[in-house]
Amino acid sequence: MPDLNRQWLLKRRPTGAVTRDDFDYVTSAIPEPGEGELLVRNLVISCDPTQRGWIAGDTYLPAVKIGEVVRSFAAGRVVASKNARYKEGDLVQGLFGWQDYVIAAHGREAAPGPVAPGVPLETAMSLLGMTGLTAYFGLFDIGKPQPGETVLVSGAAGATGSVVGQLAKLHGCRTIGIAGGPAKCKMLVDELGFDAAIDYKSERIGARLKELAPKGVDVFFDNVGGEALDAALARLAMKGRIVLCGGISQYDGDRSGGGPANYLNLVVKRGRMEGFLILDYLKRAPEGVAFLAERLLAGKLKDRIDLKHGLENAPETLQRLFAGQNDGKQLLRIAE
Amino acid sequence: MPDLNRQWLLKRRPTGAVTRDDFDYVTSAIPEPGEGELLVRNLVISCDPTQRGWIAGDTYLPAVKIGEVVRSFAAGRVVASKNARYKEGDLVQGLFGWQDYVIAAHGREAAPGPVAPGVPLETAMSLLGMTGLTAYFGLFDIGKPQPGETVLVSGAAGATGSVVGQLAKLHGCRTIGIAGGPAKCKMLVDELGFDAAIDYKSERIGARLKELAPKGVDVFFDNVGGEALDAALARLAMKGRIVLCGGISQYDGDRSGGGPANYLNLVVKRGRMEGFLILDYLKRAPEGVAFLAERLLAGKLKDRIDLKHGLENAPETLQRLFAGQNDGKQLLRIAE
Repeated sequence: MPDLNRQWLLKRRPTGAVTRDDFDYVTSAIPEPGEGELLVRNLVISCDPTQRGWIAGDTYLPAVKIGEVVRSFAAGRVVASKNARYKEGDLVQGLFGWQDYVIAAHGREAAPGPVAPGVPLETAMSLLGMTGLTAYFGLFDIGKPQPGETVLVSGAAGATGSVVGQLAKLHGCRTIGIAGGPAKCKMLVDELGFDAAIDYKSERIGARLKELAPKGVDVFFDNVGGEALDAALARLAMKGRIVLCGGISQYDGDRSGGGPANYLNLVVKRGRMEGFLILDYLKRAPEGVAFLAERLLAGKLKDRIDLKHGLENAPETLQRLFAGQNDGKQLLRIAE
Repeated sequence: MPDLNRQWLLKRRPTGAVTRDDFDYVTSAIPEPGEGELLVRNLVISCDPTQRGWIAGDTYLPAVKIGEVVRSFAAGRVVASKNARYKEGDLVQGLFGWQDYVIAAHGREAAPGPVAPGVPLETAMSLLGMTGLTAYFGLFDIGKPQPGETVLVSGAAGATGSVVGQLAKLHGCRTIGIAGGPAKCKMLVDELGFDAAIDYKSERIGARLKELAPKGVDVFFDNVGGEALDAALARLAMKGRIVLCGGISQYDGDRSGGGPANYLNLVVKRGRMEGFLILDYLKRAPEGVAFLAERLLAGKLKDRIDLKHGLENAPETLQRLFAGQNDGKQLLRIAE
């Protein structure tokens, strides 16, 4: 056990792509838990597109302040507890940040929460964690797909998208994924069971959608925005639903290009575009975890994890998301 | 009774603002109704922003073809009937177009429908017609405002917007209108009972909204798009709803400026943006007409009509909508 706490602090707000220079890498003393608090050793850090927003400014959470530890989901092990509900050795997760050690307490941002039991910590942080729950509640609660309908997913080879597509297919929907490059597209069809995939790097999304979804798109689960969103709006089926999960194409750099030019097709098609955040569903997490775990254990869902190692590599690992380099859920293991 | 049928035909698809040169003004013989058909003398023509879309291309209805009569809602009197359900003298309405006479029959675009009885034809074509119904169903069915919530309306001095604002106020909502110029803004507050008005021609909508709706906008009924929509997205309250009725700022000219840049705030605020068309509510029209008529007769709702005269002035009367010149519902009376 090291005697210092390595931490990544926010140095400045990124204006374009996130770089290592946006952060300071420092060490400090390992903190002591006070009454009711836990000391947690972080083990696996989750990399999520929404982190780009957290360091840029206020969103659904207050912005990370300059000089504060970079916010992230993470899972770790309790190494000291002054709270009767937790004992040393318990696995917990929360907004623990880019650091080796964190003081966690209920009612704080770094509040401890349960980790899905009996599975590798990586799985608990991916399919059976926020990622899988985002896919599950976003698709079913907001998108409300019916069997036989056509479901389109952007960022389909990414963490959330790959789960959404699999869930839609299991639900009896025709499922089309948008991803970058032939390898990802092949994987979607061959390994995850998508009916078709569109390579946005070499194909025109709109033209391909016309071929692949001649009756239109009933549900579009959007992680990306930009061309994908405009194309889906243009090809929306009557009463189509667009689930806004994120817009990773919009996070880096300025947004002077404007939003979806085809938004008025929501009138023509009596469509709905709706945003959601998984934070609103935490009370229903057990329902989602049970649903996902049953299918994982039955071999019907695959959990795709892109695992890197070493806290010192945190900035570069986060960058992978925005460069489209991650192959499934991006995680960073910082201790065994 | 004239012995010729004056008609406005579509000559070319407008690329920018609608002009008289986009149409041909012709005369033809008055047609004879066939079995099951009616001959209707048009009396009052409705001018609606959606007509811009109908002549530009396919939307929720097939585009008006080059050489066809310009499509519009209108009301008229049956002058010859070969259908047992209608007799000479009955008042009917439908997509009767820019012409003196039309052959109407069930199952056709120019299908006859009932006119609200016992009120002036202008009222039947405005508050108690498509306009009032659009406001009623759009606000209550899609927007679902709760008493005490803040409702924002764009195009608030226009036909639909002025009804939406009055209905929201009657429902117990704080009601803010966006309109062009001090006269319209004064009218909204002094005559229609809006709590506040924003003059988009001289004020920054976003800055004013921050003052007028410090807790955010719960329901935005959008007829306009552009800056109004982006400002409302930026100031959306948690679980806010945007009712997309139209986007008149987007109809004329190109839309290279893109759509609403702030659309991702729908994620942050778990918001919903939904389009609708009154055509889907025609079966529920009696419910809406009853609701509106009761309040009109009780003096709680005002019907604001901007009446012009003469079929020969049809293009210029339609233009008024896009120049923001209409003061309430724009109608064109072509015969008494």
